[in-house]
Amino acid sequence: MKRLYLIGMGPGGPEYLTIQAIETLKRVDVFFMLEKEGRGKDELLRMRHDILQRYLGDSDYRVVTAISPERRMLPDGYRETVRAWHDTKRQLFARLIDEELQDGQSGALLLWGDPSLYDQTVTMIAELVDASDGALEFEIIPGITSVQVLTAKHKIPLNRVGESITITTGRHVEHCDPAEIHNAVVMLDYNASFQRFTGQDMDVYWGGYLGCPDEVLVSGPVDDVLDELLSTKARVREEKGWLLDIYLLRRRLDEGD
Amino acid sequence: MKRLYLIGMGPGGPEYLTIQAIETLKRVDVFFMLEKEGRGKDELLRMRHDILQRYLGDSDYRVVTAISPERRMLPDGYRETVRAWHDTKRQLFARLIDEELQDGQSGALLLWGDPSLYDQTVTMIAELVDASDGALEFEIIPGITSVQVLTAKHKIPLNRVGESITITTGRHVEHCDPAEIHNAVVMLDYNASFQRFTGQDMDVYWGGYLGCPDEVLVSGPVDDVLDELLSTKARVREEKGWLLDIYLLRRRLDEGD
Repeated sequence: MKRLYLIGMGPGGPEYLTIQAIETLKRVDVFFMLEKEGRGKDELLRMRHDILQRYLGDSDYRVVTAISPERRMLPDGYRETVRAWHDTKRQLFARLIDEELQDGQSGALLLWGDPSLYDQTVTMIAELVDASDGALEFEIIPGITSVQVLTAKHKIPLNRVGESITITTGRHVEHCDPAEIHNAVVMLDYNASFQRFTGQDMDVYWGGYLGCPDEVLVSGPVDDVLDELLSTKARVREEKGWLLDIYLLRRRLDEGD
Repeated sequence: MKRLYLIGMGPGGPEYLTIQAIETLKRVDVFFMLEKEGRGKDELLRMRHDILQRYLGDSDYRVVTAISPERRMLPDGYRETVRAWHDTKRQLFARLIDEELQDGQSGALLLWGDPSLYDQTVTMIAELVDASDGALEFEIIPGITSVQVLTAKHKIPLNRVGESITITTGRHVEHCDPAEIHNAVVMLDYNASFQRFTGQDMDVYWGGYLGCPDEVLVSGPVDDVLDELLSTKARVREEKGWLLDIYLLRRRLDEGD
């Protein structure tokens, strides 16, 4: 039997790993690292290597690096695009497990944040496990998400008393009715969709590179900080060549609420 | 100046602590532990003491235990009830910081899961800091939530492709239109509100005592597992005298979705 661990590595810094994650690292024979194309890739790979160096030192493990398949827009629409991309990625995982992991060995993927949040690796690996007829098992090790670092650094709770929390995508917020957003964390926003929320008594709590050495925070009423936020985003993206950011949008309550 | 750390201790087991949390524990002079009335209190307190014992051993720290104020239902409704309860609790924190923490010392609260999720301690301490005129500072250390353990143990992602996530309360799910729930984590549900979701092509992923030695899991279509879930909840609550549980409700997608 082969075993695969999906390990939540937290948002970047090695101090965000849990004891459970570190104990799991020590049981791993082969670490699979998927390299993404793009200007942030060296830095993102280096953070993974730093984690291994810090917690495993010179002990005996192997690192296998592969190029992560790029998502190609298909004419059939978003769902088909994602489906085809996932098929390719699952085939890559199947090949890596088949060729690079021996029977009785354990492999691992170090995943940003928590493996369950906006990452479909769990689904792909579960499908491979289902199809393996008992030859492959997997386990998930939770990790700190950028959502938790966002609220910790802004020193706010994720919800007010009794309130629901939404976690959603830039893609959704770009098109939804702004009135439906009361308290929402927005991830994967490439179009600065917070601009749609001016004049609506909304606050924004924004963070870039959360949990990393270059972390940057901006917060305040959307109306007041919009310009600062847009220029900060432009500046840091220019400086580093890439940007990972998320934010929380929160509608102010009337005193009577 | 005095400093207070709100430390996310994760869902119970000491292995869920992050390196950041452990490094922070070592800087703390006084740990404040709030005892809740009720049959689970000894076990919940013991888990905190186990964490300190495991990571601090016999080093020099002080533990101050206080009785957490109970929430008393007021005739003015839920919001007033919570407001009065928070006032009492904030006054307790103010007294503890005033009487038990010396200038230059650091205190800490070990909070279940992550300090930002359905815990208003952050808000209360932020108010004390604002009122302190620079005499008090605080910092939040993120922790693994039971939401992350729920999905890890059930080996599912928190969302399907492009999907939004809702985190809400039993109080909300008990009264909302069931049709509004597509993919929601329900916390603090004392009335088994998942019963409202039969006959609707919904799956449930339930966990009790997540991350603790007595952890128990149930999952499947709501229609099929309802009886098992109700009897499991009744049995474990009877055996232990208390129950901490959460669940995820997920509407099945048509193939075309």
